[in-house]
Amino acid sequence: MQKISDIAGVTEITPDAPISGRQHGSRAKCLQRLIRMGLPVPQTLALDVGTVRGIAAGQFPDTAQLLGVFPDGTLVSVRPSSADPDWGGPGTVLNIGMNDARHADLSQRIGRPAADALYRRFIQSYATEVARLDADLFQDETDIAAMCAAFEAETDDPFPQDPARQLADILRAMARAWEGTSARLLRQAKGAPADAGLGLVVQAMVLGVGDPAGGEYGSGVIQFVSSATGLPQITGRYLSQSQGREALLPGAGALYLTRDARGAALEDLAPDVFDMLQTHGAACRQRLREEMQIEFTIQGGRLNILDAVRVRRTSRAAVRIAVDLADDGVIPRDEAVLRILPRALSDLLHRQVDPEAHTDSFARGIAASPGAATGRLAFSARAAQAYAAREEPCILVRRETRPEDVRGMHASVGVLTARGGITSHAAVIARGLGLPAVVGASQITIDRKARALTGPDGRRFREGDVVTLDGSTGRLIVGAAPLLEPALDDAFQSLLSWADDLRDIGVRANADTPAEATQARRFEAEGIGLCRTEHMFFEDDRLTVMREMIFAERTEDRAAALEQLLPVQRADFAALFRIMRGQPVCIRLLDPPLHEFLPADRTGMMDLAGALGLPLAQVGERIAALGEFNPMLGMRGVRLGIAVPEIYDMQARAIFEATVESGTGVVPEVMIPLVSARREVELVKARVDAVAAQVRTATGEDFAYRLGVMVETPRACLRADEIAEYATFLSFGTNDLTQMTYGLSRDDAGRFMGAYVQQGVFTEDPFLRLDLDGVGELLTMGAERGRRTNPDVILSVCGEHGGDPESIAFCRAAGFDYVSCSPFRVPVARLAAAHLAIRDRGFPGAKPPDR
Amino acid sequence: MQKISDIAGVTEITPDAPISGRQHGSRAKCLQRLIRMGLPVPQTLALDVGTVRGIAAGQFPDTAQLLGVFPDGTLVSVRPSSADPDWGGPGTVLNIGMNDARHADLSQRIGRPAADALYRRFIQSYATEVARLDADLFQDETDIAAMCAAFEAETDDPFPQDPARQLADILRAMARAWEGTSARLLRQAKGAPADAGLGLVVQAMVLGVGDPAGGEYGSGVIQFVSSATGLPQITGRYLSQSQGREALLPGAGALYLTRDARGAALEDLAPDVFDMLQTHGAACRQRLREEMQIEFTIQGGRLNILDAVRVRRTSRAAVRIAVDLADDGVIPRDEAVLRILPRALSDLLHRQVDPEAHTDSFARGIAASPGAATGRLAFSARAAQAYAAREEPCILVRRETRPEDVRGMHASVGVLTARGGITSHAAVIARGLGLPAVVGASQITIDRKARALTGPDGRRFREGDVVTLDGSTGRLIVGAAPLLEPALDDAFQSLLSWADDLRDIGVRANADTPAEATQARRFEAEGIGLCRTEHMFFEDDRLTVMREMIFAERTEDRAAALEQLLPVQRADFAALFRIMRGQPVCIRLLDPPLHEFLPADRTGMMDLAGALGLPLAQVGERIAALGEFNPMLGMRGVRLGIAVPEIYDMQARAIFEATVESGTGVVPEVMIPLVSARREVELVKARVDAVAAQVRTATGEDFAYRLGVMVETPRACLRADEIAEYATFLSFGTNDLTQMTYGLSRDDAGRFMGAYVQQGVFTEDPFLRLDLDGVGELLTMGAERGRRTNPDVILSVCGEHGGDPESIAFCRAAGFDYVSCSPFRVPVARLAAAHLAIRDRGFPGAKPPDR
Repeated sequence: MQKISDIAGVTEITPDAPISGRQHGSRAKCLQRLIRMGLPVPQTLALDVGTVRGIAAGQFPDTAQLLGVFPDGTLVSVRPSSADPDWGGPGTVLNIGMNDARHADLSQRIGRPAADALYRRFIQSYATEVARLDADLFQDETDIAAMCAAFEAETDDPFPQDPARQLADILRAMARAWEGTSARLLRQAKGAPADAGLGLVVQAMVLGVGDPAGGEYGSGVIQFVSSATGLPQITGRYLSQSQGREALLPGAGALYLTRDARGAALEDLAPDVFDMLQTHGAACRQRLREEMQIEFTIQGGRLNILDAVRVRRTSRAAVRIAVDLADDGVIPRDEAVLRILPRALSDLLHRQVDPEAHTDSFARGIAASPGAATGRLAFSARAAQAYAAREEPCILVRRETRPEDVRGMHASVGVLTARGGITSHAAVIARGLGLPAVVGASQITIDRKARALTGPDGRRFREGDVVTLDGSTGRLIVGAAPLLEPALDDAFQSLLSWADDLRDIGVRANADTPAEATQARRFEAEGIGLCRTEHMFFEDDRLTVMREMIFAERTEDRAAALEQLLPVQRADFAALFRIMRGQPVCIRLLDPPLHEFLPADRTGMMDLAGALGLPLAQVGERIAALGEFNPMLGMRGVRLGIAVPEIYDMQARAIFEATVESGTGVVPEVMIPLVSARREVELVKARVDAVAAQVRTATGEDFAYRLGVMVETPRACLRADEIAEYATFLSFGTNDLTQMTYGLSRDDAGRFMGAYVQQGVFTEDPFLRLDLDGVGELLTMGAERGRRTNPDVILSVCGEHGGDPESIAFCRAAGFDYVSCSPFRVPVARLAAAHLAIRDRGFPGAKPPDR
Repeated sequence: MQKISDIAGVTEITPDAPISGRQHGSRAKCLQRLIRMGLPVPQTLALDVGTVRGIAAGQFPDTAQLLGVFPDGTLVSVRPSSADPDWGGPGTVLNIGMNDARHADLSQRIGRPAADALYRRFIQSYATEVARLDADLFQDETDIAAMCAAFEAETDDPFPQDPARQLADILRAMARAWEGTSARLLRQAKGAPADAGLGLVVQAMVLGVGDPAGGEYGSGVIQFVSSATGLPQITGRYLSQSQGREALLPGAGALYLTRDARGAALEDLAPDVFDMLQTHGAACRQRLREEMQIEFTIQGGRLNILDAVRVRRTSRAAVRIAVDLADDGVIPRDEAVLRILPRALSDLLHRQVDPEAHTDSFARGIAASPGAATGRLAFSARAAQAYAAREEPCILVRRETRPEDVRGMHASVGVLTARGGITSHAAVIARGLGLPAVVGASQITIDRKARALTGPDGRRFREGDVVTLDGSTGRLIVGAAPLLEPALDDAFQSLLSWADDLRDIGVRANADTPAEATQARRFEAEGIGLCRTEHMFFEDDRLTVMREMIFAERTEDRAAALEQLLPVQRADFAALFRIMRGQPVCIRLLDPPLHEFLPADRTGMMDLAGALGLPLAQVGERIAALGEFNPMLGMRGVRLGIAVPEIYDMQARAIFEATVESGTGVVPEVMIPLVSARREVELVKARVDAVAAQVRTATGEDFAYRLGVMVETPRACLRADEIAEYATFLSFGTNDLTQMTYGLSRDDAGRFMGAYVQQGVFTEDPFLRLDLDGVGELLTMGAERGRRTNPDVILSVCGEHGGDPESIAFCRAAGFDYVSCSPFRVPVARLAAAHLAIRDRGFPGAKPPDR
């Protein structure tokens, strides 16, 4: 036998061998751990990353010498071993060393059919991986000689018989596959560095086929928790007289693992082996601090452990496994928290299309609000409300949504639009409502008159047709797809409560309605960071009064309309305060341009003309006069508040009266939107303070409140020092700030954002991922300058980015007090914030442990 | 006689007396200069600012003692003397000291009517200025006794007879008038500091009335240049037997000054006095370094000089006077340059409504582009073109203009819109064309169908009616108002050539068309700083091809359309290069959203559908699909260039082929608009460089060009360091940058900008005056960061602010290389830049000299 120390870059895996995850890959390291635990692992050699890189470049170790390490005539397998198992890599190749001589030998020892199977398998692997022949070539061929002949006919070379050459060819093929462009792009997409290398392990084959007289032969995989739920459950497959994972595909006629009324089970067939597997599984869990799936082969009744990998798992299972490991004392709580990716949580909060189910997808759009919903297509808010009245779930379909569609959205279980991006009106509102949404589905054509939509393949769906909308993937599915329910179980609650103990930045929710506030409490937000008041005016009864207010020509008419809106607003705020039970509620004064409250189409205009008793022409003229070239940059926010101060007066009064009425001791926060100059704040503050004084006098009750500014123009960031003199808090609205910093409307960006991200103009859509370079600098500048004049100023982010882990990291680093995001992102934010705090404290295991 | 040195705060003006403009005011100082020159100035005392302030507070000098300085029985006048004559002040009061006794005495010496006139005048002054009685009280009363009785009836006091008390009362009234709120606001509006004080002069009256036997009596004013033109011309008025300026109002039956066929003249009546006045005038001009208007009184044939003030003058006269003074060696050239306010120049460049003429104004709007024009109202571009074809001047009236109205603007002599602000499309284009414009005239109602407009008073004007539009004041005038022609005479040319010698920052023009380029050369711009290419596509023949390009579904159709546009663009650029004769021309690649090129109304859509052979519905759908919520923030600029790169390819080719073809040796500058990320520049640069290489190969000619970036998003300022790595120049587009920094559309700001400026939210409209605090900081940041990575990067401003003196000061301080503005602002910018350079070199007379 050769001595392994003679071959540079090749190390035999023994308990004390110098194996490292970085040099030899995670599989090699994991096998060493199994060996140290005394598990029966076949003899295995590890080739380090440098050696494999050399192989790709043509510098080979002496493969004959390498094979000499194993007992004579041993077949070997080669498996990839990269630093992170998620990075992928070439497939495992089994049975290297098979040739005519060994075939003849094995035919005698284990019978001709078993020997044929082993040889056939190797010829196939070699032909496709090394000789790059079409896999179909041998499809209907089972005869070995015929296969070798076919191989020779294609390649002009006889099938190689020298095991050393076979091994060299396989090693080179695997090393080169790793360097291929598509493999590189794939692993980089999963976070691998550009210079990530591949290790390989060469393991002695244990034969899972043989004479049953010599005991049980077969191979299998086993795990001890459910991949779907993470709950304890022995699951896997076992097949007598088989070799390798691939043989274990469904339908291969496997045995049950545990005793089962439906048929034979390993537990009965080889009870000792089964017990041993359970013992090994428990040991792996304890020592490797993880739920592992074990690959094993039984050779003549003797158990061999070939490999072990982390159990694949859904997000839901991941939470359960991490929490159980912590509860069992296997890992500390902070490690359990760290093991769950924040983004993964959103899968748990919503219904999902069952990933196992067969579905018929007819179009795709942008996945704008996660979750899946099945319902009847409704092409107008009115139709949606009609379905809701009949308690039939429906999906609202609009070219794009406007504020007046919000009531239709409330009536729907999902929203579909053909235009707009990830931060379009439809997307933002849907996320706030926790409503699944697909937006910007430009593939579909909507025929509003016919109340029908047509998919890219011409299939047509009419109002009332049932479809399933998957807001997590952007898919639109024909009919009712099978859905999985959300999983806010005790494990989820435990994990988040641990996260709360660990994190050091606040998390609030953006919530406009009692329903959203209830969600916010359910997800344990520490208050409302952004309550947009405009949606409150879109209920049918209020909208008419709002329109009267807008059309009022005289101050007293306007006052009368506002007088009608006051009790409604007060009730809205009181309800929110009660739901939030004294937690802070930050209310943004009216923001959008007034014309958003007016009807856009002729029917709506006629209705309005009727309600107001005005000629249609006059209504039309007035609406046209309120129209703007760029409403985003027009008469809205504080500009409205200064031009028509009665509106903010009414809102402030409603807030303060609700504060007194609710009796919750809430300290309401009044936020001024779209500020660009100090004087705007000064003017509004003077009036709000005056209203507060009036309410104090009128009610005889004292109350506290805070007045602050929504910082969403670049100028407000630049001049934050003077603005902060009048503000107790600055809340950065990163949506609008991003729009203005880039000069880019979120509603219009959809037309080129795809191309821009693809061509690397923007590395990411800045509406999805906070632009740290540009917008981020303005945020930092605003925070620093604000604190310069007002060291106690409360800083927060309340845009769509508030729930994004990277943005939270940024805000935490800049010393912000809290982030605010839509209720359904609150758990994500709580977890992400905990991760940051844990990492900052120097937790060693910033990644899940090596497998 | 009293000794003057006994009275604190009162100084007799003698050649050596310690009189200062700061302490005693400019009138006192000027009088001392006249006395030093030996001019016959009556005895005069000066009260300093502190003394007058004391008087207002009730602390009086001893007025009896003060009057004792003058010969017994002398009447005196009191005149205001503030530090700057432009600050205004109380009116002069004459004849103090008149009472019944002196009246009787004078009646004997100069006759009863003359004595009556003097007394009557004083009673009136005292009654209105001191007793605050209604000026109408004595309207029809000429009898002295009756006047005194009326005075007593109103005040319950007899008319005061003590000269010392009279003087004290007058001094107090004048001191207090100065402190009044409206006087303070008025002078602060003219630049006076908050603590500006008033000096007073008390002068012995010289009687302009008396016995003609004793020689000529009378008073007058004379100046030696025309106030309208500044050319030498003796002008003024003289009235025998009169007293004070007020008597010299037109219609008072004055004499001619110079010999005149139409009647008697001072030159004949008192030739010695006339000669002496001419000598004194010349002396004043030399010693006071200014054209002065002299107030004089002739008493018994003896000339007395009472006062001298700077000649009032039009902007045109100001230029002529300054240039003549410099040419005559009276003042240096830099002082002449400094004496002309840059803003005053724009009056000279355009026709003006004659300020003396009576006009009937029916509405007002925003004065958006200076100059006046008379023409027939035209309510569409087509109508305007029809008038132009008949060579009838017309004024284009639109609710607001769109790019497709540009050809109508070319056909008009003025533009009127009902919507939009100072930087609306109509305003910007009109200024570029030098076309008078009034925009945002929200008082008028336009009835497009009836082709008529209605003013706020109900007067209605139809298409074809003649009106005059005054873009300098915003007035709309019924009919053809008398106009004054522009004055680009030799004095104007001299002044600007001196300014060019002095200034140290470049001035270029924004010019899109050959007409504008010609203007730019006429005003001696140093090149074109911004050539917007979009206007080139609005000619009728091109617009159709442009629309075909936009509607092209296949790349080859688009290429075919662009192939048609190429020669047209090439010819455009070649023409510009030839006009500019090798001076640099900076061409901005296509910027606006494509849908701006499409028709907005049904008729236009039907025409287009016909031209393209497409169904109307399809054209409508396509136009709707190109529509945007916020076009300003949408698919435009470099986004268009990256999404449809063939457009920029075509433009680059046209630029480079025109460079070769024009043979002017021009180094064209290619500017990329709306950049927000480095990679945008990288991508466009790669393609432009490739096109340049192709043109070099195809033509066999070498040429140089520069590629740069229009910095107009806040992000481009923040990331200027990385952007400058790929740019040879950065040109800051302050219009869009202001829009994005404030989150404020220039087209929509009109609705509240008035209220905002009024309430002090913005101290000035940031589209008119560069916002130094916010936008300015971004500019500074962009400039610094750009130079950090590219020290040779050329920096400029090409927005509307480019011609504003404050902005030029800012750019100069930040080390910018040039500013670019509309051609008609080029002279203003040249002069403003010279002012800055002169002041920086510490020129002592930063203001015109004391009068």
